Amino acid sequence: MKDTVDINCDMGEAFGRWRIGDTSDEQLFPHISSANIAAGFHAGDPNLIDETVKLAMQYGVAIGAHPGFNDLQGFGRRKIAGSSREFVNDIIYQVGALREFCRRHNTTIQHVKPHGALYMELAANADFSAAFVEYMRTAAPNMPIFCMGISETYRTAKLLGQPIVREFYADRDYDDSGSIVFTRDAGKPDPKAIARKVVRACVEGRVKTVRGTDITVDFESICFHSDTLGALDIVGEMREALTAEGIRIAPVSQILESHADQVLERQ
Amino acid sequence: MKDTVDINCDMGEAFGRWRIGDTSDEQLFPHISSANIAAGFHAGDPNLIDETVKLAMQYGVAIGAHPGFNDLQGFGRRKIAGSSREFVNDIIYQVGALREFCRRHNTTIQHVKPHGALYMELAANADFSAAFVEYMRTAAPNMPIFCMGISETYRTAKLLGQPIVREFYADRDYDDSGSIVFTRDAGKPDPKAIARKVVRACVEGRVKTVRGTDITVDFESICFHSDTLGALDIVGEMREALTAEGIRIAPVSQILESHADQVLERQ
Amino acid sequence: MKDTVDINCDMGEAFGRWRIGDTSDEQLFPHISSANIAAGFHAGDPNLIDETVKLAMQYGVAIGAHPGFNDLQGFGRRKIAGSSREFVNDIIYQVGALREFCRRHNTTIQHVKPHGALYMELAANADFSAAFVEYMRTAAPNMPIFCMGISETYRTAKLLGQPIVREFYADRDYDDSGSIVFTRDAGKPDPKAIARKVVRACVEGRVKTVRGTDITVDFESICFHSDTLGALDIVGEMREALTAEGIRIAPVSQILESHADQVLERQ
Amino acid sequence: MKDTVDINCDMGEAFGRWRIGDTSDEQLFPHISSANIAAGFHAGDPNLIDETVKLAMQYGVAIGAHPGFNDLQGFGRRKIAGSSREFVNDIIYQVGALREFCRRHNTTIQHVKPHGALYMELAANADFSAAFVEYMRTAAPNMPIFCMGISETYRTAKLLGQPIVREFYADRDYDDSGSIVFTRDAGKPDPKAIARKVVRACVEGRVKTVRGTDITVDFESICFHSDTLGALDIVGEMREALTAEGIRIAPVSQILESHADQVLERQ
Repeated sequence: MKDTVDINCDMGEAFGRWRIGDTSDEQLFPHISSANIAAGFHAGDPNLIDETVKLAMQYGVAIGAHPGFNDLQGFGRRKIAGSSREFVNDIIYQVGALREFCRRHNTTIQHVKPHGALYMELAANADFSAAFVEYMRTAAPNMPIFCMGISETYRTAKLLGQPIVREFYADRDYDDSGSIVFTRDAGKPDPKAIARKVVRACVEGRVKTVRGTDITVDFESICFHSDTLGALDIVGEMREALTAEGIRIAPVSQILESHADQVLERQ
Repeated sequence: MKDTVDINCDMGEAFGRWRIGDTSDEQLFPHISSANIAAGFHAGDPNLIDETVKLAMQYGVAIGAHPGFNDLQGFGRRKIAGSSREFVNDIIYQVGALREFCRRHNTTIQHVKPHGALYMELAANADFSAAFVEYMRTAAPNMPIFCMGISETYRTAKLLGQPIVREFYADRDYDDSGSIVFTRDAGKPDPKAIARKVVRACVEGRVKTVRGTDITVDFESICFHSDTLGALDIVGEMREALTAEGIRIAPVSQILESHADQVLERQ
Repeated sequence: MKDTVDINCDMGEAFGRWRIGDTSDEQLFPHISSANIAAGFHAGDPNLIDETVKLAMQYGVAIGAHPGFNDLQGFGRRKIAGSSREFVNDIIYQVGALREFCRRHNTTIQHVKPHGALYMELAANADFSAAFVEYMRTAAPNMPIFCMGISETYRTAKLLGQPIVREFYADRDYDDSGSIVFTRDAGKPDPKAIARKVVRACVEGRVKTVRGTDITVDFESICFHSDTLGALDIVGEMREALTAEGIRIAPVSQILESHADQVLERQ
Repeated sequence: MKDTVDINCDMGEAFGRWRIGDTSDEQLFPHISSANIAAGFHAGDPNLIDETVKLAMQYGVAIGAHPGFNDLQGFGRRKIAGSSREFVNDIIYQVGALREFCRRHNTTIQHVKPHGALYMELAANADFSAAFVEYMRTAAPNMPIFCMGISETYRTAKLLGQPIVREFYADRDYDDSGSIVFTRDAGKPDPKAIARKVVRACVEGRVKTVRGTDITVDFESICFHSDTLGALDIVGEMREALTAEGIRIAPVSQILESHADQVLERQ
């Protein structure tokens, strides 16, 4: 049973004059502790990145880079077939772009969380995860990678000593392997059902899969999507349910520090 | 009369499987001291940026960020009408992307030089130059901006205390105002004529304009373009002619340091 | 005083998973007679073009091609500096793309209406209008061009014999030259004020400019924008007010035919 | 043994100011009978399409549309994962764009040949081929599709009655299934070896696979790639070798007509 959990959400996922979902970032920021800011390849443009970094700072929300496949039309939810090398270069490019906006505003990036099909491809592809984590070891050795607990990304980051944050997906389904069921469009899920699922995951560490099996889930952060219909209701119900259980919401950097303290105390 | 001068050239200006000009970057790197590396908006892609940073390091050439308008088809040589705010955000995005590749390879950026129509627009637009230099003051206060001596960019950078490097354009014509005549395509100029023009500019500090007037030019770096036809002959003739005059070629960071030393000695 | 007028609106101006404005195309289609369908350069993607052509057919709305500058981020509302030749090629490309979706669904294009900054540039640039109209004379000689009555586009099309439809802009302001005041963002105008302005233009043929002058306006079609906030209220108020005056709404192809009949009868 | 064969080549595969390969289109056009003109998604821009259509007409070379995946950086050689519907819409968009340039120049499209990873995906995917061929049946019922003889594209087109042209790949290897071995970069193959392979395929109808097996190949057109290094030597050697065997080179439209005549004569 957790006493503290992070809530992360993809932010800044509009583009130019277009918007997505039925909820604005301004509505969601008060409810989350970590923001994954779209970095321009699947969503986000330089103006929006600038605004979203400022919004995150204003609400005291930790900032993460959210790089995706180079595919605006597909919103980064279509896998592109290519080499680890070229997609790690895409990640480096996007992380650097976001980092410069943080530098401009005298703030820093807390974490990196790849987006959509890129996240799923990293999870499944050991070679790609190795190339990604090696870049992080060199250029951002203390910056946690957000990933699924059951993934090549997790295994590789752990092996190479990169900080890791495991996620629980509030608005996605799980399969029996412990991986989420990837979808390009999540429909409009029931906020109360999501809140119950999230609380159970925090309290019991378990979730029911699409096949009805009960599996164990370990995580430090809860993810939901700003483009899921009803996103504001979802995060509202989640927060209320977590608070009713006495679970505090805080950026993952605080949680990791507290873990580090516990580890030190045990030694 | 100069004893040392920098030679800068736009590098990494290919895209995907395409190339431009009749000269490869590998051929030009041995001859230059500063490289302006295309950052993805007018040319350059993440893979090419990675390779070009590595090439620059291998040849001991200083690295500059070379942001452009977001226009691959027009190679950043078509002005886009918009606000200072949005184009400074485009610059921040691109500088950050390049900086991250440098971080990955344990090196740093020496300078920022905007590209093509963006460079010309900054030169002519005081409001835009102010927004650009303000970003540099915050995020890269010691990094010189490459610009024309006759430009709003120069005036603003000087006023706000940002380091500046003035350029002499080997393969572009000058008008009587001291500005270059902007072109989308430079044709195939005569390398020996360019070499004579460059040496005269270094020795006498003068250049003849398109109207036949003789004007004064002050600069620390000589620019030529890798996509100008015959680029390898151009740089070869220039170097030979400069060497014959006893003028040394060195990255602008060394020249600025030496200037700083002279200033200190005079005090 | 008009007995019939066309109402045209830009449609299919979303992109990928993103939307714009507060009104869906499905809400607007019942109220308009001509749709300018975004063709992919400033908005619109192949999937959306396909869906929008089908929607137009379902609602009996005439289809027009709506080509723009190649600038998704700027929504085609930023002028790009270039040659007439290159921008006419951009138009040809987009008109052809839309025409193929019409062919696939056994329908045809009624008209071509350039978008945003491209429309304004054509209006002001005689050379560009000539190149555009020449293409239309060759490839679509019977297809009307939508334009302002005060524009190089109108003058050139009239001179070369291309059918023309002049527009009245419901949600844009006029200057004393009779041209609209171009804006990248129209805010949220008052629907009732727009309806009054439109009715007066139809009945009296006059509109008040931003300087308070009263000028004459001649037109066959009323334009409003689907991305203007409150678009559904705007078109609702307009239709109601026009109907109250006994003015019928019909696609411009019917109006032009009826004009042609009148011309024949007079002979 | 053939008396006539078509030679097709991808043309107009540059973009903006960039070029690819070591051979210009102007050098290749005299040697081929059918040109697959890049339509803007993997290569080609509106200006280049216009120029390439004019070049094809000037050399009497038949024009084909060459649509690709929407991936300039990957040159359409990276598969994008998505639905048949969305990729057929991409094809429609591109075919229409090219068709409009042909209409402008009073010419027509002979054929459609998808590019790179899109071609391979169609070959392997029955559902995608069905959606593609259904579009062709509606919008271009007499226009042959270029494809491999061993492919879902061929099977589906034959079943639904769409004209088909089977290709032999001069500069690609075959596997034992009769499919080509897809590559993102073909290196620099030996022109004389290619010429021998092509002549044998025309005379004996056989080719050796990468595993050394001899397999049967049926085809009406020989394909080589303008971006393969040494493309001019390749086509020169091929033509010479074919001519030495008395095999005539002609656009596939003439070959299909002649086949149709033979079929009629036999009846």
